[in-house]
Amino acid sequence: MGDPNAVAEHSQKTMVEDVSRVAELAKELQDTAASLISTTSREEEVLRQRALSLESDIKKLRSLIASSVKKRDIDPKEAEKLEDELFRASYLLSEGDAASFLPSKSHGRFLRMFLGPINVRATRKDVKLKVKDEYNNFRDRTAFLFLFFPSLLLVLRSRMWDGCIPALPVQLYQAWLLFLYTGLALRENILRVNGSDIRPWWIYHHYCAMTMALISLTWEIERQPDCAQKQRGIQLFLQWAIMQGVAMLLQNRYQRQRLYTRIALGKARRMDVVWGETAGVEGQLWLLCPILFILQGFEAYVGVLLLKTALAGVASEWQVVTCGLLLIIMAVGNFANTVQTLGAKSRFKAKMKKSKSKHELNQGSHS
Amino acid sequence: MGDPNAVAEHSQKTMVEDVSRVAELAKELQDTAASLISTTSREEEVLRQRALSLESDIKKLRSLIASSVKKRDIDPKEAEKLEDELFRASYLLSEGDAASFLPSKSHGRFLRMFLGPINVRATRKDVKLKVKDEYNNFRDRTAFLFLFFPSLLLVLRSRMWDGCIPALPVQLYQAWLLFLYTGLALRENILRVNGSDIRPWWIYHHYCAMTMALISLTWEIERQPDCAQKQRGIQLFLQWAIMQGVAMLLQNRYQRQRLYTRIALGKARRMDVVWGETAGVEGQLWLLCPILFILQGFEAYVGVLLLKTALAGVASEWQVVTCGLLLIIMAVGNFANTVQTLGAKSRFKAKMKKSKSKHELNQGSHS
Repeated sequence: MGDPNAVAEHSQKTMVEDVSRVAELAKELQDTAASLISTTSREEEVLRQRALSLESDIKKLRSLIASSVKKRDIDPKEAEKLEDELFRASYLLSEGDAASFLPSKSHGRFLRMFLGPINVRATRKDVKLKVKDEYNNFRDRTAFLFLFFPSLLLVLRSRMWDGCIPALPVQLYQAWLLFLYTGLALRENILRVNGSDIRPWWIYHHYCAMTMALISLTWEIERQPDCAQKQRGIQLFLQWAIMQGVAMLLQNRYQRQRLYTRIALGKARRMDVVWGETAGVEGQLWLLCPILFILQGFEAYVGVLLLKTALAGVASEWQVVTCGLLLIIMAVGNFANTVQTLGAKSRFKAKMKKSKSKHELNQGSHS
Repeated sequence: MGDPNAVAEHSQKTMVEDVSRVAELAKELQDTAASLISTTSREEEVLRQRALSLESDIKKLRSLIASSVKKRDIDPKEAEKLEDELFRASYLLSEGDAASFLPSKSHGRFLRMFLGPINVRATRKDVKLKVKDEYNNFRDRTAFLFLFFPSLLLVLRSRMWDGCIPALPVQLYQAWLLFLYTGLALRENILRVNGSDIRPWWIYHHYCAMTMALISLTWEIERQPDCAQKQRGIQLFLQWAIMQGVAMLLQNRYQRQRLYTRIALGKARRMDVVWGETAGVEGQLWLLCPILFILQGFEAYVGVLLLKTALAGVASEWQVVTCGLLLIIMAVGNFANTVQTLGAKSRFKAKMKKSKSKHELNQGSHS
């Protein structure tokens, strides 16, 4: 074996063998992968059909029971038991592993516009929860910045800038708002595709906020003279943003507690997102609700003020009018949705109370 | 059965049975789904391991062959054959069905910032191709608008507005640019995650363009008097945009032909995106290259002009300086990348020529 030619020949032979082995492996791997993908998609299709038919069965039975109760064909107590059983079945279907085989909600124009036809639906539960969790973290980080940026601007305004905010910091802040609202709108659309029951309004709200941030970027920041008066709108907007930051922090805390409680109670789909205004942890709600209503009132007030300055001719640019209108629309929409959610909450509470008292009544009759 | 009570009892009994059947089905479905998911992910894990080890084998063998060729341990002709075989194996691995089991490229900061931790990787080949195809369509639509908007603005400027473009249409155009570049950057990042070999520069280029669109939104559009002179920068920018539109249309046509040719030749990964400047269909390249270089020159010229106006004090806002710098950076980057791609192309051509002449030589020696 001392002959270098022999060594070379040997190594060449080994190499040829290795290469053909690798080529063989690549072909095998391709075949296995192709068959796994086709088997899996076939099995998924079967499960999809089963999940769909089960979903429609549950729906049919629910309406059947409801109509039987109306016609008094069924004992109400029995009907309630059946409804509970159906609720558990539908919960298992929509929250369990089969959920990923049910057809997803449409991606919607917004996602398609920005991302194209890519699928943003997670199949695995843990990924979905990670997405939701990261969304919560994003909102937490955001809330602090929401407090910090406008506060800084207002402090510097009175300490350093003699009542006149220069254009650049305000524009940086507005660019950040635009990025933030775009990110929130994208993430919330993704959560919706993944089965979250987020109220559509909160997504529309972010579209409005995106538009406003975009418009406010084109808004000329008035300078000397009399900037203190001309910048009144910006000042109000920043104060409103600070309040928004406080409300967001409270909401996030409340939201998480409520979500964890509801998950523990098995009452929420885990992908639920409710932008703040909702039912739940009693004590904090008494703090949260007034703040939210004050915030909405203030938002509408800033909007009206902007419209007023536009009409008075102090700053008659179209941006002022549009931002004013958008603020009023957002305030009204937020208010309506908060009231609706509180209404749903009190109905839920009444129902709970009723079933509790009935439960006690039943216990009474049994004893 | 005429007794209504009996009917009610019967229907109640059926309902109870139906409900418990549905509940049973829900449980079964949950179990099947859970086991399918766990089986699939186990099998995918196995395939992932196999794909990874195959990938590293191919890499090792490649470097072994290369070093053997250097040490002249192996017949060059034989080495070339082995390299070809390895190329085919690695192509099968990276382009075939097993590709979706190889770990994906990291999503990158940009995607994580806007979308959170959601996975945007498609498993199935047809979905990937759909994403790529839709990206091409998006660029086609975009190119027409790129031609249309600035042309319209320039025509209206001379016909209706007496040389003075009002602020709103320009700002709408800039907002559209911002949306467009954000969409392109998101889509290209998604393509990259799905295995496209897009040059990183083109993505950075879109980040620069996004920044510029954002900055230009805060840019005051000068009005009377002397707006014709003050708006010189905007006018140049719009002219450049029209040229960009023409170049994009040519690029898209060229790009598609090249991609289809390369797919047919089995030489391209199908997710390849090259923003225009690349190798391929001969005839059109002679048209495309000069246009691209003129475009880049014009881009740099507009940038320098903006810097000049800023230094001359005509419009000394920071926006003018920053946009000028960004345009110059983009022009230089585009130029460098175009030249590099052309270089790669001519090297490729030289190699093809060499192997062709060698082939002819071989045939000559055989005859």
